[in-house]
Amino acid sequence: MIYTHGGDIYSYSRDMLDFSANINPLGTPDDIKEAVKECADGLERYPDPYCRQLRSAIAARENVRSEHIVCGNGAAELIFSLAYFIRPNRAVIAAPAFAEYSRAAEAAGAEIVYHTAKAENGYVHSGDIADRIKSDRDMVFICNPANPTGALMDRDDIESVLKRAEDTGAVAVVDECFLDFADDNEKYSCRSLTEKYRDLVVLKSFTKMYAVPGIRIGYIICSDSGIREGIYRARQPWTVSSLAQAAGIAACKNTAYAERARKYIAKEREYLKKSFERLGVVYEQPGANYIFFYHRPELKQELIERGILIRDCSDYAGLKPGCFRAAIRTHEENMALIRELEELV
Amino acid sequence: MIYTHGGDIYSYSRDMLDFSANINPLGTPDDIKEAVKECADGLERYPDPYCRQLRSAIAARENVRSEHIVCGNGAAELIFSLAYFIRPNRAVIAAPAFAEYSRAAEAAGAEIVYHTAKAENGYVHSGDIADRIKSDRDMVFICNPANPTGALMDRDDIESVLKRAEDTGAVAVVDECFLDFADDNEKYSCRSLTEKYRDLVVLKSFTKMYAVPGIRIGYIICSDSGIREGIYRARQPWTVSSLAQAAGIAACKNTAYAERARKYIAKEREYLKKSFERLGVVYEQPGANYIFFYHRPELKQELIERGILIRDCSDYAGLKPGCFRAAIRTHEENMALIRELEELV
Repeated sequence: MIYTHGGDIYSYSRDMLDFSANINPLGTPDDIKEAVKECADGLERYPDPYCRQLRSAIAARENVRSEHIVCGNGAAELIFSLAYFIRPNRAVIAAPAFAEYSRAAEAAGAEIVYHTAKAENGYVHSGDIADRIKSDRDMVFICNPANPTGALMDRDDIESVLKRAEDTGAVAVVDECFLDFADDNEKYSCRSLTEKYRDLVVLKSFTKMYAVPGIRIGYIICSDSGIREGIYRARQPWTVSSLAQAAGIAACKNTAYAERARKYIAKEREYLKKSFERLGVVYEQPGANYIFFYHRPELKQELIERGILIRDCSDYAGLKPGCFRAAIRTHEENMALIRELEELV
Repeated sequence: MIYTHGGDIYSYSRDMLDFSANINPLGTPDDIKEAVKECADGLERYPDPYCRQLRSAIAARENVRSEHIVCGNGAAELIFSLAYFIRPNRAVIAAPAFAEYSRAAEAAGAEIVYHTAKAENGYVHSGDIADRIKSDRDMVFICNPANPTGALMDRDDIESVLKRAEDTGAVAVVDECFLDFADDNEKYSCRSLTEKYRDLVVLKSFTKMYAVPGIRIGYIICSDSGIREGIYRARQPWTVSSLAQAAGIAACKNTAYAERARKYIAKEREYLKKSFERLGVVYEQPGANYIFFYHRPELKQELIERGILIRDCSDYAGLKPGCFRAAIRTHEENMALIRELEELV
C-alpha cells in the first residue's frame, strides 16, 4: 500500500510540526480522554454491534432519527463498506478529492470518473456534475467543503445532483466531515435532505473536530433501510470498538467545544489569509480548517528540513505540482509556519 | 443485520453471567488497560497505517517475520478484507464454523460450500475437505480448534488441505484464534507452515486470550506479498486504531499472562467435564476455552431466566436444536453454571 494521506508522522525520524493532517489544533477534549480511560476497564465485553447508545447521542445532536444512523470505524470504513454493498459500475467523484473515495470504489470494482472543478472558479463545483450520473449502478461522491481545496458547494447545486441521482437510482454520498468547521455550516449541510432523498448518504466523523484520529469513529445519516442494512451486511459486526463508542458519546455531549473550535479556527483562518497575502502566497478561499495554496514544487521538502510537514497535493486527481494544503493550527504554530515561509519566499 | 454471535449482553435488561462469548475469564490484564489509558493522551495523531511497532512485537512473540504480518480491526475485519481482495467463486468452509467466514465470502460474491464434520467423529475434520477445493478462485476456511465444537484438527490433515490449495492455487485460511488456549498448541499451529505454503493465511487475535473484545485487534501471518498487499488495498488505511495498536504491543510483552490463563482454563475444563459427566450432560472434547454439549432445545431460554447466557448453536450450518456452547469461565462462575444446570436437569 502506498500511503497517500497527511499525518504520516511515523515516516520521519524527528518530531514534526504537523500541518499535513486537518485535525482540530485545540486537541482532544479532556472528557473524551476520560471516557476512553473509563472504558479501558470494561474491555472484556464485545462492543454493541448496533452502537445503540452512540446512535441515540448522535441523533439528539444532529436532530435526525437514530434509526437513520450507522456508525463505522472512522468515516473511511463506511466509504468502503458502502462501496462493497453497492458494487457500483461507475463512481463519479467531484475532484480533487479525498483519495479513499476512489480507493474504495476501485476495490469494489468500479470505473472511476473524475469530474474536476475549475481552478479559475476557485475549485467550487456547480451542479454540472449531475450530468455525469448515468445509471442506478453509479455512485457519486461530493465532499463539502472539498478536501483539499476547501471550496464550499451550494446546497442548491448539491440538490440538483441529488435529484439526478434520484431519477437514475444512483447513490449520492455527501461527505460533511469538515463542514462543522465552516461558517454558516447549517446553510450548507445536507443532513435535513436525507428525509427527502432516500439515496443520499451524508457522511460525518468525530475525527477532525474532536481531534481523535487515533480512535476511529464516524457515521452516516441515510433514510433508506436497504442501504443501511447493506452496510451492515458488507462488514463485520464489531467494527466500532467499545472505546470508539464511548468517545463518540462523550463528543456528542460536548457541543461547547465544537463551538469554541469553530470560532478559534475562523480567527486563525483570517490570520493565515492575511499573512499569505502579505507574503504574496496565492491561496483559495478556505471553507474549513485548512488552506489550499500555490508555491514552488520543492516547498514541502524545504519545510520538512525545517521540521514542518505540509500536504503536497500534486498526487490528487486534477491537481499539479505546486499545490499544497496546510491545516489551520494554533496561533503559535501558524506563526511558526508563516515565519518559515517568509524565510523561504 | 441479524446478530448471530455470543456476547450480545446489550439485548438483555438485566446483568447476565455471560457464557456465550469465549473470553478469557481472568479478564483484561492491567498492563493492557494501562497502555490504553496512556494512549488516550495521544489520540490527536493518526494511527500508523502499517502498525510497524505492533508488527515487530507480534513477530518477536510468534517467531515469524514482521513483514509477514498484517494487522486488522479484529480478526473478523481481516476475514472480510481478505475475501474482498480474493473475490472467491467458492468458499469451502469446515463446518460447523464461525459465521463470519460465510458472511464475508457471501458479501464478496462467493458460493458457500459447507463441508460438515461428523458428530460421530466428535466433529473432528480429517483432510477430506481437500477434495472440495476445485480452482484458484476458491478459498477454504478451517478453524483450529473448531468453533463451536472445540475439535482439534491434526496438522498433517491440515497440511493435506494446504497441498491441495497449493496445487489448485486456492487460498487457505487457518483460524487459530482459540489455539493458544489448547494444550500442546505448538503441535497444532500452522504458523511455521506459512513459509512453505504461500497461499496459507494464519489468522490470530488478541481478543480471546487477553479478554479485549472491546478493543478490536487481530492479525494474519502470510508469506505471500500479493495477498498482504491485497488486504491493504481492500480496506481503509487506518483500520487499526492507535488504542488497539498500543493494547496489542502490551499484550505481546505479557506472555506470562497467557501461560497462566492456559493452565487455569485447563483445570476448569476438567472441572466442567467431570461435572457434565456427573449430571449426564453429553459433551464433545473441548480443545480450547469453551465446551460444546447437548441438551434440550429450551435450555438457553431456561438459563436466561436464571441470569445465565449460553450460546445456542442451532443456527450453525450442520447443527441442530439442542446443541450448545458454554465458555469456560472462573471457577466460581463455572460452579454457578453447574448449579443451575443441576436444578434444570
